[in-house]
Amino acid sequence: MSGDLQFDSQGRLHHFLTTEGLDRDTILQILDTAESFVSVGEREIKKVPLLRGKTVVNLFFESSTRTRTTFEIAAKRLSADVINVDTRVSSTTKGETLLDTIRNLEAMHTDLFVVRHSRSGAAYLVAQHVPSHVRIINAGDGSHAHPTQGMLDMFTIRRYKGSFENLKVAIVGDILHSRVARSQIHALTTLGVPEVRVIAPKTLLPTAVERLGVHSYTDMRAGLDDIDVVIMLRLQRERMESARIPSEQEYFNLYGLTTDKLRLAKKDAIVMHPGPMNRGLEIDSSVADGPQSVILPQVTNGIAVRMAVMAIIMGGKAQEEMPAKRPARRHA
Amino acid sequence: MSGDLQFDSQGRLHHFLTTEGLDRDTILQILDTAESFVSVGEREIKKVPLLRGKTVVNLFFESSTRTRTTFEIAAKRLSADVINVDTRVSSTTKGETLLDTIRNLEAMHTDLFVVRHSRSGAAYLVAQHVPSHVRIINAGDGSHAHPTQGMLDMFTIRRYKGSFENLKVAIVGDILHSRVARSQIHALTTLGVPEVRVIAPKTLLPTAVERLGVHSYTDMRAGLDDIDVVIMLRLQRERMESARIPSEQEYFNLYGLTTDKLRLAKKDAIVMHPGPMNRGLEIDSSVADGPQSVILPQVTNGIAVRMAVMAIIMGGKAQEEMPAKRPARRHA
Amino acid sequence: MSGDLQFDSQGRLHHFLTTEGLDRDTILQILDTAESFVSVGEREIKKVPLLRGKTVVNLFFESSTRTRTTFEIAAKRLSADVINVDTRVSSTTKGETLLDTIRNLEAMHTDLFVVRHSRSGAAYLVAQHVPSHVRIINAGDGSHAHPTQGMLDMFTIRRYKGSFENLKVAIVGDILHSRVARSQIHALTTLGVPEVRVIAPKTLLPTAVERLGVHSYTDMRAGLDDIDVVIMLRLQRERMESARIPSEQEYFNLYGLTTDKLRLAKKDAIVMHPGPMNRGLEIDSSVADGPQSVILPQVTNGIAVRMAVMAIIMGGKAQEEMPAKRPARRHA
Repeated sequence: MSGDLQFDSQGRLHHFLTTEGLDRDTILQILDTAESFVSVGEREIKKVPLLRGKTVVNLFFESSTRTRTTFEIAAKRLSADVINVDTRVSSTTKGETLLDTIRNLEAMHTDLFVVRHSRSGAAYLVAQHVPSHVRIINAGDGSHAHPTQGMLDMFTIRRYKGSFENLKVAIVGDILHSRVARSQIHALTTLGVPEVRVIAPKTLLPTAVERLGVHSYTDMRAGLDDIDVVIMLRLQRERMESARIPSEQEYFNLYGLTTDKLRLAKKDAIVMHPGPMNRGLEIDSSVADGPQSVILPQVTNGIAVRMAVMAIIMGGKAQEEMPAKRPARRHA
Repeated sequence: MSGDLQFDSQGRLHHFLTTEGLDRDTILQILDTAESFVSVGEREIKKVPLLRGKTVVNLFFESSTRTRTTFEIAAKRLSADVINVDTRVSSTTKGETLLDTIRNLEAMHTDLFVVRHSRSGAAYLVAQHVPSHVRIINAGDGSHAHPTQGMLDMFTIRRYKGSFENLKVAIVGDILHSRVARSQIHALTTLGVPEVRVIAPKTLLPTAVERLGVHSYTDMRAGLDDIDVVIMLRLQRERMESARIPSEQEYFNLYGLTTDKLRLAKKDAIVMHPGPMNRGLEIDSSVADGPQSVILPQVTNGIAVRMAVMAIIMGGKAQEEMPAKRPARRHA
Repeated sequence: MSGDLQFDSQGRLHHFLTTEGLDRDTILQILDTAESFVSVGEREIKKVPLLRGKTVVNLFFESSTRTRTTFEIAAKRLSADVINVDTRVSSTTKGETLLDTIRNLEAMHTDLFVVRHSRSGAAYLVAQHVPSHVRIINAGDGSHAHPTQGMLDMFTIRRYKGSFENLKVAIVGDILHSRVARSQIHALTTLGVPEVRVIAPKTLLPTAVERLGVHSYTDMRAGLDDIDVVIMLRLQRERMESARIPSEQEYFNLYGLTTDKLRLAKKDAIVMHPGPMNRGLEIDSSVADGPQSVILPQVTNGIAVRMAVMAIIMGGKAQEEMPAKRPARRHA
């Protein structure tokens, strides 16, 4: 699945499906645009008219109240109309195909679909079939990608570390099944982070993970040495049932981030987690709520980053209608 | 159930419950108003202020994400506030009666209820009991009526065929249980379509269906001869369980619309379906996605038609508040 | 659980968690502000810009479509953006703690949480942990409090009875488990109602209920004597399973409000019920729909009262942004 689909013929971002294959300039454009939206969340009237009269559809084939909420808030702060379609109860249960659902929604002159699906590639499939006036944002597809999460993580790292050039970043946990890890790795390497490490038991590491440009560790203590940024992943409890990990307690002992283990990283290392956290499983509360945690700022940044992605991919359309007032490009 | 309830003392459309008994002028008023709303869906800012400050309640006792979405989009493009009430999880499960639910919602000074219910007559029951400031749109009641679907079908036919006077229209499938078919038949006959045919196995035809002014066929090939408009109905798979049809394969062979069978209709015949489609059951994908299909335009038109119905029944109220700017009547 | 948490350092209402410990002036401020909002529901454009650009989250850990709808309508009429979070399907099912859910939502720069939870004290717990820019309204916590219901009841009583000074008020039903009764009793006694009675079988009366300043009756006929206001409570049918009441029929005979029993109250007594009603169990339809019933006006008043509470606790913030136009304090 290539990222080419993400750009229009003039090379502008058209859909947002993956961080894989995104060039550095595009990533920086998103981060810079997001900076301009941070202040919107801090105003008394948290609203800009960029997407007024546009219809954003949250199309969640896999339930996630948290992620849906962030996109809904982001879209409403851009003044869009938001339609939530929870397809567990929708016509797909009546046997309608994914593409028929999509074709129907696009026929209603909707502008932007935020798609979440348990199958890898679902957002691509959708993007391949929508007409050019419809834009797609991938809000998580199987174990493939969760690019807005990846971007908000980059945004958070830049805010705390200033730049990417001299960082050592460790991603810890279920790398094998994590769409978040994949989106982070592609963005980190493109942004020039010189050392990206993945830390996990062998059963949770993809084969040949080094091809992604990362170093793999099964020993967390070794992997955390001299690290600037520690990204903890959520562990799906299903992994235990499938015998990929021994027990909660043993996983926590070996791969749970504790104050003790965190001492092995740099003194000013930051700790990140995409949420929701399993406290006491992959992260100890003393770390999650500790001074090095930037987990809540990640959430705050997520709104600004999602507003930025929406504004950029809707950019041309937004520009036409408000040339003098507040062009989307100015944000970029 | 008469349609009288639909009109106020001055003969203006007050609720929209059924196409039965609607006069030709009212139907044409809806179609003409819908024409004026088509362009709203094509604008950059897809919003008109007609229902600003009004509260529209989507009151769905029977789940239908698709239909709910069309009404929600239509209402939001008219600038209304929309409240979705999915009563499967609401207080009706606590033993509250339908009328108590309605009385409560109307006491909140809501303006318009879009009601869907599995029982025929539910929207009527509601309309009989609401005070005069509340308007009702029937979004499907049992096997009785689905009048906005019927109207968007009329709108689509007029767009492709210009007028109704010389048409032959065939409705194919489960006529017996179809509220869509009923709403279409009443509208088609009122609009002066000289020949309306229904095509179905005997087990899916109402007794004495000819009284509705249609010709019935059990042989689909005979029924499609020289037809201008083919309307396929969705087949509920429950019908098979109840032994009303033999098997999926045999139903498809006899009543599924294929390229082959479609050749029996006029060369420029259009193919319609209210959705969601059972591909390979009542319609072949080659037809559903083929050049004669207007199934997606139906969906697009559905937004404009629902905006029109909402604007017209809310007309008096809308007029009072914006006499100079954009009177609803101008649309009509 | 004290009510101190409800006020900021300048003594202004900051959260709205309980009517317990509220001073008379604050209660009257809410009632007076609600009076000014009644007219908004009667306008053609039912919207004021007080909370424009604010994000209100309906955070319902316990499902209640009815209550959620009233808050959603109130917030939208104040022009807020509303996000509905139904946590039955949210990340709490993924093992996230209540406080993590809250911290995440507040990190999105949301302004106001409307919290409903089956456990007493949940809204307090939330209020204790949110930063000062976030306001909390308790929409019902276990059997503890439902203060906006209590306030809308006070508002309704004042509208029909003029003042509180000479009233006799009876609350009938499951006092033991009723958060509504608790909120009513605190407000009634603070407002100076000289006689508040609770009427219930012994099994549904709290021990030492008199300490709340009420008189208890197990004989409904005695309790209704010379009463100005009769408040019926909803009986949870679970009470029967737990053997706290004998049978529906016997409960109705002893504690159901009938025309016959209502005759024992004053001739101009009003009848109230928080809804949803169990007709034929705690109240007879002839009373529920009779001339003395003010049950539907309660619902109407509920919107105005919820708008008032929202406007007051958001007051400072609302004021800053629109000093000249429509200060919240003017409403008060």
